[in-house]
Amino acid sequence: MSERGAAGPGPAAIQVSRIMRPDDANFAGNVHGGIILKMIEEAGAIISTRHCNSQAGEPCVAALARVERTDFLSPVCIGEVANVSAEITYTSRHSVEVQVNVMSENILTGAKKVTNKATLWYVPLSLKNVNKVVEVPPIQYARKEQEEEGKKRYEEQKLDRLETKQRNGDVIFPIINPDRQTKEPHTVGYSQSSLIHLVGPSDCTLLGFVHGGVTMKLMDEVAGIVAARHCKTNIVTASVDAINFHEKIKKGSVITISGRMTFTSNKSMEIEVFVDADPFVDEARERYRAVSAFFTYVSLSKEGKPLPVPQLLTETEDEKRRFEEGKGRYLQTKAKRQAQLQQAALQ
Amino acid sequence: MSERGAAGPGPAAIQVSRIMRPDDANFAGNVHGGIILKMIEEAGAIISTRHCNSQAGEPCVAALARVERTDFLSPVCIGEVANVSAEITYTSRHSVEVQVNVMSENILTGAKKVTNKATLWYVPLSLKNVNKVVEVPPIQYARKEQEEEGKKRYEEQKLDRLETKQRNGDVIFPIINPDRQTKEPHTVGYSQSSLIHLVGPSDCTLLGFVHGGVTMKLMDEVAGIVAARHCKTNIVTASVDAINFHEKIKKGSVITISGRMTFTSNKSMEIEVFVDADPFVDEARERYRAVSAFFTYVSLSKEGKPLPVPQLLTETEDEKRRFEEGKGRYLQTKAKRQAQLQQAALQ
Amino acid sequence: MSERGAAGPGPAAIQVSRIMRPDDANFAGNVHGGIILKMIEEAGAIISTRHCNSQAGEPCVAALARVERTDFLSPVCIGEVANVSAEITYTSRHSVEVQVNVMSENILTGAKKVTNKATLWYVPLSLKNVNKVVEVPPIQYARKEQEEEGKKRYEEQKLDRLETKQRNGDVIFPIINPDRQTKEPHTVGYSQSSLIHLVGPSDCTLLGFVHGGVTMKLMDEVAGIVAARHCKTNIVTASVDAINFHEKIKKGSVITISGRMTFTSNKSMEIEVFVDADPFVDEARERYRAVSAFFTYVSLSKEGKPLPVPQLLTETEDEKRRFEEGKGRYLQTKAKRQAQLQQAALQ
Repeated sequence: MSERGAAGPGPAAIQVSRIMRPDDANFAGNVHGGIILKMIEEAGAIISTRHCNSQAGEPCVAALARVERTDFLSPVCIGEVANVSAEITYTSRHSVEVQVNVMSENILTGAKKVTNKATLWYVPLSLKNVNKVVEVPPIQYARKEQEEEGKKRYEEQKLDRLETKQRNGDVIFPIINPDRQTKEPHTVGYSQSSLIHLVGPSDCTLLGFVHGGVTMKLMDEVAGIVAARHCKTNIVTASVDAINFHEKIKKGSVITISGRMTFTSNKSMEIEVFVDADPFVDEARERYRAVSAFFTYVSLSKEGKPLPVPQLLTETEDEKRRFEEGKGRYLQTKAKRQAQLQQAALQ
Repeated sequence: MSERGAAGPGPAAIQVSRIMRPDDANFAGNVHGGIILKMIEEAGAIISTRHCNSQAGEPCVAALARVERTDFLSPVCIGEVANVSAEITYTSRHSVEVQVNVMSENILTGAKKVTNKATLWYVPLSLKNVNKVVEVPPIQYARKEQEEEGKKRYEEQKLDRLETKQRNGDVIFPIINPDRQTKEPHTVGYSQSSLIHLVGPSDCTLLGFVHGGVTMKLMDEVAGIVAARHCKTNIVTASVDAINFHEKIKKGSVITISGRMTFTSNKSMEIEVFVDADPFVDEARERYRAVSAFFTYVSLSKEGKPLPVPQLLTETEDEKRRFEEGKGRYLQTKAKRQAQLQQAALQ
Repeated sequence: MSERGAAGPGPAAIQVSRIMRPDDANFAGNVHGGIILKMIEEAGAIISTRHCNSQAGEPCVAALARVERTDFLSPVCIGEVANVSAEITYTSRHSVEVQVNVMSENILTGAKKVTNKATLWYVPLSLKNVNKVVEVPPIQYARKEQEEEGKKRYEEQKLDRLETKQRNGDVIFPIINPDRQTKEPHTVGYSQSSLIHLVGPSDCTLLGFVHGGVTMKLMDEVAGIVAARHCKTNIVTASVDAINFHEKIKKGSVITISGRMTFTSNKSMEIEVFVDADPFVDEARERYRAVSAFFTYVSLSKEGKPLPVPQLLTETEDEKRRFEEGKGRYLQTKAKRQAQLQQAALQ
């Protein structure tokens, strides 16, 4: 099923399917990327928690540590079925890599499309002591190279997690929805937005911490508002940069999810999203930055064709710097994709 | 996977898995039977809609017509994963039989238990004309007997549907939440209850009618309230009698779901549940009975052991008649189960 | 941002935004007033809980005690963003006044409209002992008069709360969905309606009691059903009278929300709504009246213009008396509004 699929006594793949409902979609009938991210994470959490408890040892719950960059290859519509399948492709001593594939299926026409391929990293936390990471049982690989390739991916993501942890610490104040009357359209200030959510019981795992998928769904929601404010058209999620979950968020916290546009190309917008948690009944803890990530959105015509995006107007030095950084990420992704296409053409 | 599994060009089985959340369970942490019924129905709706559209023809949506009697073999808890798998086991010209199996899995211990086996019947309705039933593509059977056995099941359920349609017409008034101060504990009037719900877009299929699973979830909820009012203990769904869906319920309707206790044995309670729909903005249509069914509940101690149930006090002639009818169903089910056990012992 | 805004070390304003979804609206695409009330209350609960925990002291959760009369100034549609901002404007020893403003924003056109201004009163309850009201840290006022005006508002609402507590005790039986076949259209009995809901974990605060916003959403839902049954047209919430929350409602209770029409003017309907809670597993506690309020609805044409409303037919003495009382409230509100307009014209 997967080219890098692990064989042998490794845990069986799991599948989650669901019909997309009106509440899962925007006014144009396109399912929010965040709904897909939430389903992906639920499948990942099930398979990795199951695996980490598969040998006698301390009971544990797998917590999402990181999602690799993922592209949304085609939009999903209300009434279609999203089929999410997950399997474990690598294990280190303390982490599990899960590969997830999403297919959308129009059950009326039978048409199927690949929607997403995502890679998630989970870390098993002890059920008795949430600060203790327990050991992960190793999986068996069909071929030696699978293990080596997995190890390479593991090292790469570890490095990136360390880096963003430092960057993440920088920003300390949330973005407040501005009084947009006083702002010029297409400036950063004009479209920046926030959502605030009180974490309830159904948002949380057995450990009483927010599911990664719940956070990602809210992040996509705020990014979508920023993008729609900027373009005034039907917008959809095109991709999400790697997301690192540095800090857990406890039940009863208030979370502020803020988004601001950082970069626009001709046909895409990059939005930076921050999640700040305020465990406000718990006196010992200050408000803290829990997650941050970059979402890329595109604007679609009624026929589903990409539309040109108005250029972002940068005003301050910080905005100009972030724009250049965003341009760097954009060009890098573009170059990587072209290299992949060339490689594919050569084979 | 299934003994009666169909082979050949028939559509593949599908699987739906989900972690059980606090909102899915009662105060003792036991997942409501209605949540399981809703998951079962969603899997059935996906697989049968997919099958009915698998050949060129009129686009259609499969609507739930009937659920066969099903037993809840073991309770499911918050944090466990419910794995629901569905496959098509028989097709007639205008209906599809779906067999669904539910396994609960404690992903911390790896323990798995069979929770349910259910059989559902769907009828495909044209997407353009909701009153037209379209033709079902036939499935292929691995063995000739599978088709014959399926046909027998088809004929049996058809008969039963006709019968209950007549019985169903009898009752016309809803059951009201009583002023319990004036009622003796353990009478029928003391525990009878209703829920009233406004049908929203997310409760509905593409055709704009309520999903059968949404109705069953509410039916189980009211039956649980009746049982808890009677016993004042932790109660769980033990089984549901065959449910026939005679009439569709349209988006925007107000539905009243009413339950009254009909019979108690030493360790179980039978509750009759009615669903009445009121398409109140549509002046041409009167309130009507959409569904009715019998739910059986048991009372559990803190350790999960069955507790004795206080005997139901019947007052009116109707209550006494219904008690005797309930006793008849109880003894019939008991006899059938013993016959199955004996047959199993002989094999 | 607000004229009465508090300055100094008082807690910063907060903002909650959300895109309106299909499930938030009626069949004409107008968002239910109850959805807006629920968002308002969530913002109020967050800011007041945060403030009450801002100084060393007993951890607590702010519980909604009262919402002042609020007008719905313009309808909100699916796809629009509702921006709710809240700030604390007064504190007494044991209560917090929160001022909330709601703006709807069409993110496609950029058009913004003020939708609501609401004033809410919260009381902080100890997390350890729900029956203990803890002390509220005082806020700083920019001008001396702000404190004096706040104190005046505090005294006024306190008086009104006492009064309605007495009136509230009067009514003791719920309103049942009628068998409308036997009722004349436009009578009180023809349109009166109820909803019945089982309180789940996600309806509740950390203390295990229903969020005020959840109750208000259900109250608006039933008032909308009553209004739609009376007019058979597209109806929207125009205003809500002051609502007092006399009694908490515990998780696991069954709540009955009942509405009956009390008065019609040429273009508006007044609906009285009651909330009765039944903590049914708790034998020590009888069913009790938790909340009551008056909602005013208007009927809109397809173009969004107000339509004439069929006059309410009163039959019993009680209905005639309630009609006259409703007329009194209607004339009083009208006079107050005209006085405000005249005052504004003079300035």
